[in-house]
Amino acid sequence: MSNLQPISSAACIGGGVIGGGWVARLLLSGVDVAVYDPAPDAKRLVLEVLANAERAYGKLTAVPLPKRGTLTFANSIAEAVAGVDFIQESVPERLDLKRKVLAEIDVFARADALIGSSTSGLKPSDLQAGLQHPERLVVAHPYNPVYLLPLVELVGGAETSPETIARAKAIYGALGMKAAVITKEIEAFVGDRLLEALWREALWLIKDDICDVETLDDVIRYSFGLRWAQMGLFQTYRIAGGEAGMRHFLAQFGPCLKWPWTKLTDVPELDDALVDKIALQSDQQADGRGIRELERIRDDNLVAILHGLKAAENGAGWGAGAQLKDFEDRLWLLAKAAGRSATKPDLSKPLALHQTTVNAAWLDYNGHMTEFRYLQVLGDASDAFLRMIGIDAETAANGSSYFTAETHIRHLAETKLGQKLSVETQVLAGAGKKLHLFHRMLSPETGVCHATGEHILIHVSKGKPCDPPAHVAERLTEIADAQAGLPLPDGAGRHVGQPKAR
Amino acid sequence: MSNLQPISSAACIGGGVIGGGWVARLLLSGVDVAVYDPAPDAKRLVLEVLANAERAYGKLTAVPLPKRGTLTFANSIAEAVAGVDFIQESVPERLDLKRKVLAEIDVFARADALIGSSTSGLKPSDLQAGLQHPERLVVAHPYNPVYLLPLVELVGGAETSPETIARAKAIYGALGMKAAVITKEIEAFVGDRLLEALWREALWLIKDDICDVETLDDVIRYSFGLRWAQMGLFQTYRIAGGEAGMRHFLAQFGPCLKWPWTKLTDVPELDDALVDKIALQSDQQADGRGIRELERIRDDNLVAILHGLKAAENGAGWGAGAQLKDFEDRLWLLAKAAGRSATKPDLSKPLALHQTTVNAAWLDYNGHMTEFRYLQVLGDASDAFLRMIGIDAETAANGSSYFTAETHIRHLAETKLGQKLSVETQVLAGAGKKLHLFHRMLSPETGVCHATGEHILIHVSKGKPCDPPAHVAERLTEIADAQAGLPLPDGAGRHVGQPKAR
Repeated sequence: MSNLQPISSAACIGGGVIGGGWVARLLLSGVDVAVYDPAPDAKRLVLEVLANAERAYGKLTAVPLPKRGTLTFANSIAEAVAGVDFIQESVPERLDLKRKVLAEIDVFARADALIGSSTSGLKPSDLQAGLQHPERLVVAHPYNPVYLLPLVELVGGAETSPETIARAKAIYGALGMKAAVITKEIEAFVGDRLLEALWREALWLIKDDICDVETLDDVIRYSFGLRWAQMGLFQTYRIAGGEAGMRHFLAQFGPCLKWPWTKLTDVPELDDALVDKIALQSDQQADGRGIRELERIRDDNLVAILHGLKAAENGAGWGAGAQLKDFEDRLWLLAKAAGRSATKPDLSKPLALHQTTVNAAWLDYNGHMTEFRYLQVLGDASDAFLRMIGIDAETAANGSSYFTAETHIRHLAETKLGQKLSVETQVLAGAGKKLHLFHRMLSPETGVCHATGEHILIHVSKGKPCDPPAHVAERLTEIADAQAGLPLPDGAGRHVGQPKAR
Repeated sequence: MSNLQPISSAACIGGGVIGGGWVARLLLSGVDVAVYDPAPDAKRLVLEVLANAERAYGKLTAVPLPKRGTLTFANSIAEAVAGVDFIQESVPERLDLKRKVLAEIDVFARADALIGSSTSGLKPSDLQAGLQHPERLVVAHPYNPVYLLPLVELVGGAETSPETIARAKAIYGALGMKAAVITKEIEAFVGDRLLEALWREALWLIKDDICDVETLDDVIRYSFGLRWAQMGLFQTYRIAGGEAGMRHFLAQFGPCLKWPWTKLTDVPELDDALVDKIALQSDQQADGRGIRELERIRDDNLVAILHGLKAAENGAGWGAGAQLKDFEDRLWLLAKAAGRSATKPDLSKPLALHQTTVNAAWLDYNGHMTEFRYLQVLGDASDAFLRMIGIDAETAANGSSYFTAETHIRHLAETKLGQKLSVETQVLAGAGKKLHLFHRMLSPETGVCHATGEHILIHVSKGKPCDPPAHVAERLTEIADAQAGLPLPDGAGRHVGQPKAR
């Protein structure tokens, strides 16, 4: 599994919002994590961030996650880092503190354990000076929420080895992240340089009463914020330049650089008056919503945006959506690898191959799951069954897949937000090119059947109906034979409007 | 219709990327537009932007758009503005030119016609000085692409009347836009102040070889760009501050203001070397993609993001998604108003009530429309039928709606990207609480039937099955009676796996 998941154990030193986000990303990728944070409420905070992350991942992907890593809370840095493959440092942003913590990690960690620092601005050369093994330290600067936003800025210092950068790319990549390698070391790197410039300008606008914080946020999120979720600054401006391209754009907007369009020559004093003003306006903007509620809304929105970008370009994905797709491909491979050694399911019973939870995007204006989402869940269950018999995106690309020819759905119970659903699949027939499946969409808690789906699927190769490859037919026959003794499920063979049997 | 669409005619002076975007937004909202632009290729450019916009709107919303406004190209400003309700000026960003153009508009336009200027930085007081009717001029600064990004910054000058600001909010609101009113007049307003600060910092990063333009764009779009598509700067930081809130965040990050985290005290010289460097890196980033292709990708991504945000918060929408929802509600009301005077459809034939086009987000990994999207299209056709008999979101909120109990789908032909679909609906039975519909999903061009859907829907009030209200029952009976003579459609009454009739 080394290519798919190069580490199996990690230590997180510092368990705040950022440290907790790392803990969640690591655990959900199947890595065991030891946390050290001396703050009295560190454990509570880490568990809250983890709960947020598990909720978000439940919506983010339908791919089975690896078995969650084990979480432990250590009593010291020495205890946390002992023997682990990888350490992420996320303590407060003070050079003296970071150097002290890193020196302790350096002493007690394995000499080959990679150390990433979450610093948002301190130079790696300053952080690694004096370490016994400075070559394995790299700045790995993430963005909040760490479990959802894929970016990590990788910045090596004077003593960081090229192997460390390469290993870091593999390690963070296996956590579903996009590593942007910044080759020249400066304070605040790239992301926080850009953020800091905009932030300073924003403070002036608020201080000078040009607008309030809500209007400023609206200006961002109804305009360039939407652009930047999918293309950055330069590609956006390339398009704005039109057919004449980037040179034209630069010629057109170059003169503005001389105009008094920012207060860049000075920074405002963050005195009590300005702090009070911003805090008050921010309270008004929040409109009574607490941090937990805002976090939930933010995470749902980010998941929806990532889903939108994942479907882009005929399903190839774009930007952060392509990144999510890569991560899911990796998870599929992990699940496949894990399945090889898993205990064999009992094929003589209906198979529980697909579980999901109803999320907010699936609701209609009545607050119930929208009609077509039922078929989405049933279709995902069919896909899970197809993977079990050896049909997936890869075989489809090589010209072997199943298409649904016919479907019958019965809606039996209302399905609301947060409802857990488990689909049980029975094979009614599976010989030749034809596959006849019956799904029951159940609440795993109450056993209530929310819907049934009966489907005929046809095997197709290179656009023509035909028998599936031998290994698929073999596996399918094995399951169909094992289930041949099961009674015909209630609702099978019904046509629409047929009176109920008595 | 005055509240829904306060203007019926407009002039756009300047037909570049921004002017063309205004033309598209106005036409697609049902407003007649006269364009004046002396550039020889202005007509071609406007038509290209319009084609982009029509493509994007086809994906953006399933709500029927108003009858498209009439587009004319005028030979002078005087001809373009004569008699229109509203004028949008989008000529190049030079104060002398803008003042000359606005003076001409002022003379030839109706005295009560509102004038919006697209300037991204010039002060409205400077633009309106010397006009005969300066009180009706307002800066209305949009963002590219104007037809998709909802923001317009409204800034009044010293002579702008409060009535003009109120009218402008109504006019731009009716075009589906979010008006952010900036109450204090400064150069570059709010959006371009923020953009300019970040842009100047970005130029330094490229000039100093800290990274290339692709890495810089990746840093944005894999991190804070995703955040800013749904919450802006201050609400994002409020959450980052955690339970301790905004004050804590400001205390924590206040010191950075003193750190050398930006090059804000100086701006780089945009000399030939820097222009060459950026243009070359931008070419590499585009990877052979032309501007039209990048525009298409950008628009698809923006549509997907807007859809994601529209589904947020149990379908209430968030930010730009809530804005889209408001726009659609307005379009529904316009369609309803238009329907009152439209010719009555022939009820004795299957009814073509829903048309759509297959977009990229609907495809599976085989490049075909995903199974569950068929049910989405069929469900949308059922909704269109329900609206025809008087059931919509409003009646549902008051406790009268239909739920689908049973569905049978036959997939008859592959459906690919860009396929136009028209659904014809036949009522098989419609008495009492039960409604039996049969949909045929057709290609309007070839007549090929891609799928059929047979559905039983049950009328429900306050959670209980019951007969629909009298006016709904009456309308339904009228249609069911008119269609009673139609033959039973092919595929109706079939169960899954039933052999084909011969």
